[in-house]
Amino acid sequence: MKSVITGVGRYIPTVIKTNADFALHKFYDEHQQSIPLRPEVIAQKFETITGIVERRYATEDLNCSDMATIAAADAIRDCNCDRETIDQIIVAHNFGDVIKHTIQTDMIPSIASRVKHSLGIKNPNCVAYDLIFGCPGWLQGLIQAHAFIQAGMAKKCLVIGAEALSRVLDQHDRDSMIFSDGAGATILELQDSDSGILSFSAQSHCEDEVTYLNLGKSNFPESDPRIRYVKMKGRKVYEYAIKNVPLAMKDCLDKAGIRITDVKKIFIHQANEKLDEAIVRELYKLYGVAEIPEHVMPMNIHKLGNSSVATIPTLLSMVKREELNGYKITEGDVVLFASVGAGMNINAVCYRV
Amino acid sequence: MKSVITGVGRYIPTVIKTNADFALHKFYDEHQQSIPLRPEVIAQKFETITGIVERRYATEDLNCSDMATIAAADAIRDCNCDRETIDQIIVAHNFGDVIKHTIQTDMIPSIASRVKHSLGIKNPNCVAYDLIFGCPGWLQGLIQAHAFIQAGMAKKCLVIGAEALSRVLDQHDRDSMIFSDGAGATILELQDSDSGILSFSAQSHCEDEVTYLNLGKSNFPESDPRIRYVKMKGRKVYEYAIKNVPLAMKDCLDKAGIRITDVKKIFIHQANEKLDEAIVRELYKLYGVAEIPEHVMPMNIHKLGNSSVATIPTLLSMVKREELNGYKITEGDVVLFASVGAGMNINAVCYRV
Repeated sequence: MKSVITGVGRYIPTVIKTNADFALHKFYDEHQQSIPLRPEVIAQKFETITGIVERRYATEDLNCSDMATIAAADAIRDCNCDRETIDQIIVAHNFGDVIKHTIQTDMIPSIASRVKHSLGIKNPNCVAYDLIFGCPGWLQGLIQAHAFIQAGMAKKCLVIGAEALSRVLDQHDRDSMIFSDGAGATILELQDSDSGILSFSAQSHCEDEVTYLNLGKSNFPESDPRIRYVKMKGRKVYEYAIKNVPLAMKDCLDKAGIRITDVKKIFIHQANEKLDEAIVRELYKLYGVAEIPEHVMPMNIHKLGNSSVATIPTLLSMVKREELNGYKITEGDVVLFASVGAGMNINAVCYRV
Repeated sequence: MKSVITGVGRYIPTVIKTNADFALHKFYDEHQQSIPLRPEVIAQKFETITGIVERRYATEDLNCSDMATIAAADAIRDCNCDRETIDQIIVAHNFGDVIKHTIQTDMIPSIASRVKHSLGIKNPNCVAYDLIFGCPGWLQGLIQAHAFIQAGMAKKCLVIGAEALSRVLDQHDRDSMIFSDGAGATILELQDSDSGILSFSAQSHCEDEVTYLNLGKSNFPESDPRIRYVKMKGRKVYEYAIKNVPLAMKDCLDKAGIRITDVKKIFIHQANEKLDEAIVRELYKLYGVAEIPEHVMPMNIHKLGNSSVATIPTLLSMVKREELNGYKITEGDVVLFASVGAGMNINAVCYRV
């Protein structure tokens, strides 16, 4: 019996923030020194490295839990199932609800409880909880749901990734241009099928890596040091990811007995275009394959940025609906999901469509 | 093959805050009206209802993740196992790390990553993540670990509940006297044994109940409405809990085929003495048993208050080490764990020692 994805949905926020919009920002480095480049030049360099041209922010009235609810409703429609038959709601995030113009995380009650409330699900045996695992949280939620399903403790789980990073960004830090808002959702259920999860891999590196993504004070010299923002040691994250993510992806494929040449699509966390390309190049190198197949790696980072836990399910939804540059998946395709983020955490799931 | 608790630990903070210490507070109600009673009278009424005489707060230098680490190290010592053999670290909390004199939740990286770092665990296959499920979070973490173990996906899990509620309390709200800080930890592992988890039950009620515990502005009229604190609809929580918790406990016992008369100890979330007594009374009533056995319900709320996710593992640690008024557990005893909290969530686990 397999754990099968029977529904996929997403919410793409409506506020478009282009790189040009950052031209009015004053950028400082981590030592609070002004960066001696015009903002347009900074934005141009940024675009070359990350591939990000624009990103989406949620409107003021929407919180993480609101976006999660919209994505979940979309997945339920896609699955065409009775929402009262869902056994678990798992929401991955890293900041909970942060009301615009405030800095407090609110997860009393959990984001999953809010989603269950907003979806109008009454069944008390549908258990709702949140999972915190950095950017790989949605994929870890999928593994979590898979464990409950394979243990015979759940049959149908709604797994959501939702994040409103625009609420917690330092406007004086170039890295803030990477991040965006969004939500993606999937329904994973027990089915007697050839489709489903074939294997997974997950790791946490918490020695020096524990500080690679953290909360820290603004780069702006006159900022209040008690107010903290997402901070990233970009170079460290990059080196860590290209070394470790391909190994986890290969471990996952090996567990499933799948050859790299049989992988039809790689859905990778939309962290940064150059990084994602380097990871996939290293993966193929591990197998001695120099040429990466065309169209193996759908990307939506150019228009959507890095929405943390939301990137993979959003990407999956777009490809499933054939809304992304001709990319599509067909029954029987083997696909590989992989993510990396704060912790540092890495995971991968090998899946037959 | 069973999921067996092989180690239990806890951290009890060192700052003692007595009810008398609240005599200097000015209390207001939820309508920001001054309460026309002397603080000593308020504290006395409070003590009669909740049973709480004093509670513990963490020193300024300690965060949620620090307490979690100390409790985890205590559990590892108790289990006498090699920490590098742990497959998962699950930390239940609701506010993450909140630095003293600030209001921001910090869970970048997750509390579990910080704990893994501080414990010096190097094994990358030890996966660390946080679970948000209100006060029943630690017990839900135990269920989570049980699912991974029974699915053959983990063999040994460290499950921690840690919370520094003193950082997020409204000093002008009488309910703040309930809450305290603390951490408890357990190691759950796969063993061929008669001991272990026999059954579990979990529920989320998210209709009207979703607001029974939430974050809201201070009761103090001149407070900044953007700064929010734990708020509780006490009467609603009480009525909800005495109606639903006994049913979940009975459901759990029924699943295990255990009679109420075979239950040797009930480890219930230390929410409020009167409430806990009412829940257990209702449970026995469901079986038509009028007399509750003596010494079935160990309580430590009088001295420790309600430390949210930390109460049950702390209580278990004290009873296991025979440090609580002569209470003890013996091999072969059937015990019942139960909790209730924000969500609203309820869970129960039936366990043979």
